Amino acid sequence: MTGLSYRGAGVDISRAEDALRRVRERVARTKRPEVIGDIGAFAGLFRLGVGYTDPVLVATTDGVGTKLELARLLDRHEVVGTDLVHHCVNDALAMGAEPLFFLDYFSTSRLDPAVFERVVGAMAEACAAHRCALLGGETAEMPGMYGDGAYDLAGFLVGIVEREAILDPKHVEVGDVCIGLPSSGLHTNGYTLARAAVARAASAQRKDARDVLEAPRPELRGGTLGEALLAVHRSYLEAVRALRRAGNVRSVAHLTGGGWEGNLPRALPEGLGAVIDRSKWVVPPIFKLLAALGDVPADEQWSTWNMGIGLVAIVPGEHEWEALHALPDSIVIGHVERARISPGGTTAPRRVRFA
Amino acid sequence: MTGLSYRGAGVDISRAEDALRRVRERVARTKRPEVIGDIGAFAGLFRLGVGYTDPVLVATTDGVGTKLELARLLDRHEVVGTDLVHHCVNDALAMGAEPLFFLDYFSTSRLDPAVFERVVGAMAEACAAHRCALLGGETAEMPGMYGDGAYDLAGFLVGIVEREAILDPKHVEVGDVCIGLPSSGLHTNGYTLARAAVARAASAQRKDARDVLEAPRPELRGGTLGEALLAVHRSYLEAVRALRRAGNVRSVAHLTGGGWEGNLPRALPEGLGAVIDRSKWVVPPIFKLLAALGDVPADEQWSTWNMGIGLVAIVPGEHEWEALHALPDSIVIGHVERARISPGGTTAPRRVRFA
Repeated sequence: MTGLSYRGAGVDISRAEDALRRVRERVARTKRPEVIGDIGAFAGLFRLGVGYTDPVLVATTDGVGTKLELARLLDRHEVVGTDLVHHCVNDALAMGAEPLFFLDYFSTSRLDPAVFERVVGAMAEACAAHRCALLGGETAEMPGMYGDGAYDLAGFLVGIVEREAILDPKHVEVGDVCIGLPSSGLHTNGYTLARAAVARAASAQRKDARDVLEAPRPELRGGTLGEALLAVHRSYLEAVRALRRAGNVRSVAHLTGGGWEGNLPRALPEGLGAVIDRSKWVVPPIFKLLAALGDVPADEQWSTWNMGIGLVAIVPGEHEWEALHALPDSIVIGHVERARISPGGTTAPRRVRFA
Repeated sequence: MTGLSYRGAGVDISRAEDALRRVRERVARTKRPEVIGDIGAFAGLFRLGVGYTDPVLVATTDGVGTKLELARLLDRHEVVGTDLVHHCVNDALAMGAEPLFFLDYFSTSRLDPAVFERVVGAMAEACAAHRCALLGGETAEMPGMYGDGAYDLAGFLVGIVEREAILDPKHVEVGDVCIGLPSSGLHTNGYTLARAAVARAASAQRKDARDVLEAPRPELRGGTLGEALLAVHRSYLEAVRALRRAGNVRSVAHLTGGGWEGNLPRALPEGLGAVIDRSKWVVPPIFKLLAALGDVPADEQWSTWNMGIGLVAIVPGEHEWEALHALPDSIVIGHVERARISPGGTTAPRRVRFA
C-alpha cells in the first residue's frame, strides 16, 4: 500500500492551474484602470479614486440556482456564467449603482478545466461588456460534494453610487407609475419548478427529460423548451441608465426569487402597494407551456416566475411619457396605491394586487 | 394528479424566511455606522466616507473546502461559519487591508433553518468581532445538488487600505527575515487529504471514520482527531496590526491551499526566494498523526498543509527584534535570498527552499 497524496485523494492543484491559465487572457481584458496588480495575489485590489462626493458601495451576491443542471444537461455552460454576472449587475442597479468589480466562486467535485473555461470565460466577457473588473475568484475542488460533472457557482459584485443617487423606495408616492421591462425568460429563478414540470411531462409521455427539452414546439415558433429555458438572464444596466437619463426614477425592483410578491414590495415603502394590470402585456409562451406541462396553478406561477417582466421601475406619473419614449420595449403595467390590509388583518398584507 | 408547486418541487421560500429570521438580530449587531438601510434590499449599502487620501478596495472570496464534511459529521456547524470569515479576513490583511464588510453564499438541497442559524450565526459573531459588517448573503435551495444535510459555503469580503500602506512583495529585499505565526491546525486547507488519511485508518482498523475521529489520542494529550481537525482557522488581524505598529512589515503570506510552495512565493518579488529552517518550530502533533495514518510523504505534507505556521510576515532584518517582541508567539523561521534556479532550468523554479 503506497502513501496518500493530495492528488490521489482527488484534489489536483495542477488542474486548477490549467483551468486558470485558460481564462487568464479573457480575465485580463476586464481590467479597468483602477485595478492594481495581477492575478495571484491573496486578494484583488481596486483603487477607488477620490472623485466622489459621498460614495456608497453597493454589494450583492447571487447564484443561478438549478439552471445549472439544465446548462449541464444541454451542454450550454456559457449561459450560467453570463447569467451570474447579469443577475448581480441587476441587483446592484436596483439600488442605483454602476458596477465596479466582480468575483466568482466555482465549486465542484472534480474540476474539468474545459468546462471551467467556458463558464468563467463567459463571466469575463459579461464583465467586460459591463466595464466591470473580474477581480478574483475561488475555485474549489471538493471530492464527493457534487455529482459527476455538477458544479455550483456564486457571484459577488461591488458597485458604487453617489449617496444622493441611491434608488430609495421611500421616495415612492401614491400615483407613481410602474414601468415593466420584458424579461428574456425565467432568468435564473424558478428552475426547480420548471424542471419538475419537464420531468412530469417526460414521465407522462414515457420519454427522457432531454427529449422533452429538445422537441421543437409550435408554441415556441418551432424552438425548443431547452433553448427557451437557457435564454440568458437579461442585463438591465443600459435600460435603467436610459430611464434615469430620461426622467426621474424613484425605485427599481429586480424580479428574481419569490416572483412578484417576493420582489416588487422591496421597491415600495411601508404602507404602499402596487396594483398591476396583467392585461397590459402578454405572458410569453415559455411560461404558459411550463404551466401546462406541470399543471402549475396561476398563484404559484406568479409567486415563482417573473411571467415576462424582469424589472419594474417606478417613476412619477408625469415622467411616464419620457420613460416609455426612452425605452421602446417598456410597458406601463400598473401604479402605486395605499397598501390594502386584508379584512382578516394578517400581519403581512400582500402588497402586490393584480387588477 | 394535482398541479405542481414550488414547495412541492422542493423549494420552500418560507424555510428561507424562517432561517433568516433566526439570524436577523445577530446580523444586525454587525452593523457599522457606514451601513445604510436594512436587510431585504436588493443589495447591501456601505457608505465609504471621504476621509481617505487614496483608498484602495481589497476584495477576496473563499470557501472552507471539505472541512464542511467534518463539521457536519461531528455536528460542529459553527466552526465553518467562523472559519469562512477568518479565512477572508486573513487574505485581505495579506494585502494590508482592514475589513469593511462581508457577504456569504449558503447553498444546499433542502434548507435546515437550525443548521443555517448555527453557521450564519457564527459568521455574524466573527464579523462583529472584526468590526466587519455582514452586509448581505444569498441562500440557495437546490434540490438534488447536494447530499442529505450537505451544504456549501462561499464568503466574500471587502476591505480597505490606503494605497501607500498596501503590502507589496516588491518591497521585499534579500536578507529580510521571515516571521512565522503559529496556526491552530489545518485551518481550512488540505481536508480532503486529511479525510483520506482518516478513511484509510478506519479501513485498516475496521472501524467507522467517526470512531477514528472520536478516539482520545495520547499524541493529542488525550484530545481527539476530530477536535483537532475542527479547530477554528485562526484570524491574524490583531497579530498583523501589532506587527505593523511595532515595525516595518514588507509583505505577508497567508498559508492556505497549496501549502508552502503555493503561498509563500506570492509574498515575494520575481527573482527572490525564501529559505526556511524547519528546525525552528515543532510541527504540531495533528500533522504528524495525519501523516502517519495516511503514510503521507513529507513533500506532500508540506505542499498541502501549513504544518503549524499559518501566516508568514516578511520584515527587514533590523526589525526582527521589534516583531518578535510585539508577538510573543512569533518565530524567526527563515530569510529571503536570491531564488536559485535549478540546474535543470525549469521554467518555474521552486522558490521555497527548506534548509
